[in-house]
Amino acid sequence: MDFHSLAQRYQTPLYVYDFDKLKENFLGFKDAFAGRKSLICYALKANSNLSLLSFLASLGAGADCVSIGEVKKALLAGIPKYKIIFSGVGKRDDEIYEALREDILFLNLESFEEMKRVEKIAKELGKRARISVRVNPNIDAKTHPYISTGLYENKFGVEIEVAKEMYIYAKTSSFLEAVGVHFHIGSQLCELSPILEASQKVADFYKSLLALGLEVKFFDIGGGLGIAYEGEEIIPLYDYAQGILSTLKDCEPTIICEAGRRIVGDCGVFLTKVIGEKSNSHKRFIIVDGAMNDLMRPTLYQAKHHSYILGKENEPKTPCDIVGAICESGDFLAKNVLMPSSESGDLVVFENAGAYGYSMSSNYNTRTRPAEVALIEGNPKLIKARESLESLWANELELL
Amino acid sequence: MDFHSLAQRYQTPLYVYDFDKLKENFLGFKDAFAGRKSLICYALKANSNLSLLSFLASLGAGADCVSIGEVKKALLAGIPKYKIIFSGVGKRDDEIYEALREDILFLNLESFEEMKRVEKIAKELGKRARISVRVNPNIDAKTHPYISTGLYENKFGVEIEVAKEMYIYAKTSSFLEAVGVHFHIGSQLCELSPILEASQKVADFYKSLLALGLEVKFFDIGGGLGIAYEGEEIIPLYDYAQGILSTLKDCEPTIICEAGRRIVGDCGVFLTKVIGEKSNSHKRFIIVDGAMNDLMRPTLYQAKHHSYILGKENEPKTPCDIVGAICESGDFLAKNVLMPSSESGDLVVFENAGAYGYSMSSNYNTRTRPAEVALIEGNPKLIKARESLESLWANELELL
Repeated sequence: MDFHSLAQRYQTPLYVYDFDKLKENFLGFKDAFAGRKSLICYALKANSNLSLLSFLASLGAGADCVSIGEVKKALLAGIPKYKIIFSGVGKRDDEIYEALREDILFLNLESFEEMKRVEKIAKELGKRARISVRVNPNIDAKTHPYISTGLYENKFGVEIEVAKEMYIYAKTSSFLEAVGVHFHIGSQLCELSPILEASQKVADFYKSLLALGLEVKFFDIGGGLGIAYEGEEIIPLYDYAQGILSTLKDCEPTIICEAGRRIVGDCGVFLTKVIGEKSNSHKRFIIVDGAMNDLMRPTLYQAKHHSYILGKENEPKTPCDIVGAICESGDFLAKNVLMPSSESGDLVVFENAGAYGYSMSSNYNTRTRPAEVALIEGNPKLIKARESLESLWANELELL
Repeated sequence: MDFHSLAQRYQTPLYVYDFDKLKENFLGFKDAFAGRKSLICYALKANSNLSLLSFLASLGAGADCVSIGEVKKALLAGIPKYKIIFSGVGKRDDEIYEALREDILFLNLESFEEMKRVEKIAKELGKRARISVRVNPNIDAKTHPYISTGLYENKFGVEIEVAKEMYIYAKTSSFLEAVGVHFHIGSQLCELSPILEASQKVADFYKSLLALGLEVKFFDIGGGLGIAYEGEEIIPLYDYAQGILSTLKDCEPTIICEAGRRIVGDCGVFLTKVIGEKSNSHKRFIIVDGAMNDLMRPTLYQAKHHSYILGKENEPKTPCDIVGAICESGDFLAKNVLMPSSESGDLVVFENAGAYGYSMSSNYNTRTRPAEVALIEGNPKLIKARESLESLWANELELL
């Protein structure tokens, strides 16, 4: 990938995604579960660019959505409705209504209260809502507290005993059809054992549901597999799949895997240009045209994205912070990293920026969001144009 | 303010700003410095809604901008160019070019390197660039590290010795005119003494510049005054102004104050509706239709916005978290707060949400950003419509 010419052609800051790598990653998941009925539901929250979704759709991907906006994007991108699931702890009534109307595969439910709302809306629609219950296995996923979701102190899922009552209730309802069971203990996971521990707990529960005569077909194992931001040892997909399957002896559910970061994360880079350097007696700063509004993860999660200055990889390095133009000290892209001396116009490449990069971006400080470019068999294609300044205030101007 | 009818009319989540309070706050700053030549340059980064800016313009406000987008919004809102300053550590060449072309009051510079870029661009334009230098006084502002800016470990400003060299250089240049000196040590400050300590340091420096025969007219004291999010004792404006003026004996610069949060913060509330409650054996959660994409401060700074359920202020309360629909545990609006039992449809009011609320919002999880409503003499006026889902992907769809 010639980042220099991409930066010249599309300007910076810029997100670039390698769709060949994306394909390889997606097929890696498909292959890992190939021996079983399975569906890889890509988690849109990681990166929901329509062209990227459409590309995944062409490979057979389903969609894990967490808002009706994501459901609509998945449909627009050509993902069939029977491969779309709708998860999330705060579905509004209008979202549930729309999701049922669109007749998607199922809704992952987060509480008894939510199930009753779904039942009520299904009744209004004269439909039977396909549902699954998210079980909170109370297992520490050993990740950043903001993205750990499988403990009772987290808002997600219900305790197994409650889940059981929910399935029993659903069985008695003419407007509910419990088709799946679900768990997801966190994001950026690099240890397999907590996942398998959770899977075993939920598999045992799943079997107890079967024993009760419930016909639950889908075993939704969530997602959350980590990528190597800082050289972490990541979980091999084969071990992951085999581990999950080993918890499902004597039963044959269709596996649903909601991978997001692991599919798209390492396909993307964030390109940003050096504006200038500044130093004081204590510190050196490389100031770039990208900022926390473009790539929030370093500030929000203290995440580290490996970075380098293109063409200067082998030059001598000294410590510095790489910072953006936003007016707060929290605006940094890298802290205390070793970088060569840089000049205005140099290109800094931040790796592993395909997931939770653009999707978390904002217009803070009245900054336009970056463009997004796909590389398809090496050929660049603009998949989202850089915002114009005028578009930021168009709907304020008309009300002025 | 009848929040119920506002929520009904404009839906939730919703930002509501009381413009009468806004006026009072702005005039409070004007009054505090009334005895001296002074200009209150409202810091757009706190909240840059065009109608809000236009209202402040009508009261005589100037603008402190940190991007060319903010400069353009200030001009659009009717703030005269001679009241607009452009600050920030990462101004791009094209931004500097535009700012000089627009002939705004001055640019606050952040390094020698930046000054040379400004000089070069001014030369190209055949103009003399009015500049000011941001001095980093190396004083601990005693606030959240992400919004503390006056230490050498922060990216902001230059050491006094470097500033001096910059002024001497500027004097020799035909394309630079040093008209001001600037400092700003952080945001949400509730202690006056670090501000005055910084002011004294910079005032002494200012006087040394005058003694060198430099005609520096503006003494830009930054902003950063805190508001009472959690009952903090805030700095009285009278004490603030008098304290600043006491550091400026024997000289008569025009004071520029870059207040943002203190002008707009307590004018705004964030209204969000309860979707439902859920509890497990450990915890109670109130799930609302607002989330971290709408109001980022709790997640990003662990900020606390006082909140209450409208109409249930006097009911018995138990601990809970107030969380949104976004799929991460970092998505909370309040943690471990006391709240009454809530029902779907109840309205939760988050106070002090006028600053760094909407301005930091995003579309994470494919969520549309809220509407903004102004109350002018008690009458509501929509000043930004809620985004439509379709608008989120319009510029992806055309490239699909």
